[in-house]
Amino acid sequence: MKKIFAFIVLSYVVGNAFAQQSPDVVDMKKHHLVMQFMDGDSLSQATIIAQVNNIRRALPNAEIEVVCHGPGLDLLMTTKSKTSSGLTDLASKGVIFSACNNTMKRRNIKKEDLLSAVRVVPSAMVQLTLRQEEGWAYVKGGH
Amino acid sequence: MKKIFAFIVLSYVVGNAFAQQSPDVVDMKKHHLVMQFMDGDSLSQATIIAQVNNIRRALPNAEIEVVCHGPGLDLLMTTKSKTSSGLTDLASKGVIFSACNNTMKRRNIKKEDLLSAVRVVPSAMVQLTLRQEEGWAYVKGGH
Amino acid sequence: MKKIFAFIVLSYVVGNAFAQQSPDVVDMKKHHLVMQFMDGDSLSQATIIAQVNNIRRALPNAEIEVVCHGPGLDLLMTTKSKTSSGLTDLASKGVIFSACNNTMKRRNIKKEDLLSAVRVVPSAMVQLTLRQEEGWAYVKGGH
Repeated sequence: MKKIFAFIVLSYVVGNAFAQQSPDVVDMKKHHLVMQFMDGDSLSQATIIAQVNNIRRALPNAEIEVVCHGPGLDLLMTTKSKTSSGLTDLASKGVIFSACNNTMKRRNIKKEDLLSAVRVVPSAMVQLTLRQEEGWAYVKGGH
Repeated sequence: MKKIFAFIVLSYVVGNAFAQQSPDVVDMKKHHLVMQFMDGDSLSQATIIAQVNNIRRALPNAEIEVVCHGPGLDLLMTTKSKTSSGLTDLASKGVIFSACNNTMKRRNIKKEDLLSAVRVVPSAMVQLTLRQEEGWAYVKGGH
Repeated sequence: MKKIFAFIVLSYVVGNAFAQQSPDVVDMKKHHLVMQFMDGDSLSQATIIAQVNNIRRALPNAEIEVVCHGPGLDLLMTTKSKTSSGLTDLASKGVIFSACNNTMKRRNIKKEDLLSAVRVVPSAMVQLTLRQEEGWAYVKGGH
């Protein structure tokens, strides 16, 4: 009983400490969000990374997947990504970056052309569909 | 019993009268729709206002929130909105116009730079996520 | 009992045969996806047709509706569609192509200006809302 009480007090203190560190937190619940990214320009690459960082600050326990297709695959390519360190950092924290295999075939992009943190999915559109069927929210990212 | 019958007849008459006034009505049910707006040009400002008006004509009891971020915040600014009267009119009828606080910080936009009917939300992406979790439909607005 | 067993074996054989023919198949479940298309350029017309074909290869039993509005209505017009044969082929396989009546009124497009396979809906935004309420996933198509 004492242990439970101590745990509750500790949780409260830790919770408060966290809230003080991060005034931007909206809630600590588990959320699921799949984002679509299809922009080819550098500016929008910076935008999507900023958007994911903003979401994580507001919803620290959100599970986020960024599904890239079309020109948006540049974000994931070793030679074309302008934000590879930001992306790798987010991937190390659990954000999923997915490349559309249909786009890869059409643009002749190989798995080894992608940043190592990237996963390949059969189809961006299908991935966005399946995630929503699993209850994930969906938002178009970028500009 | 008479009262119930009178009510049914009255509902039918009123319903028909309304339908005659508004042939565009699809149904009178309660719907919930959150729209994303991120376009910076004047033409698209007119488009989003027209889209909201069209939805309201078809679904008069729809609850609608327009979440603006990035260049889309221009729609909500006193100095940049080309549709401030249309927006204020819709807001007076219950349409919610929300400004992304992350965009406001990045673009150095203050609350007093926004039309008075506008609400500020911590993050556009988070708002779009939370609304979908509450069961709202989501559509990208503008062009 | 024998018949049931034969049916199970047959289903397995046919299922495998199909999987061998189509290595791109993700699953054979019934899915529902409503796509928004609003792009006016020829390149994006080819993109949306390719996207629908890709989805159908991965999810052969998906029910798909492509809702077109704004400049996206060009995809559906006899004089402006660059992909009329691809579209008609998909429509014959059950894909629904819907034209926004609000756009038609604004752009003065008549029903007879549209490819014969096209359906008219009162409002693109309303259609996208209603489909999501029915449990369909929603994705922005095109580029």
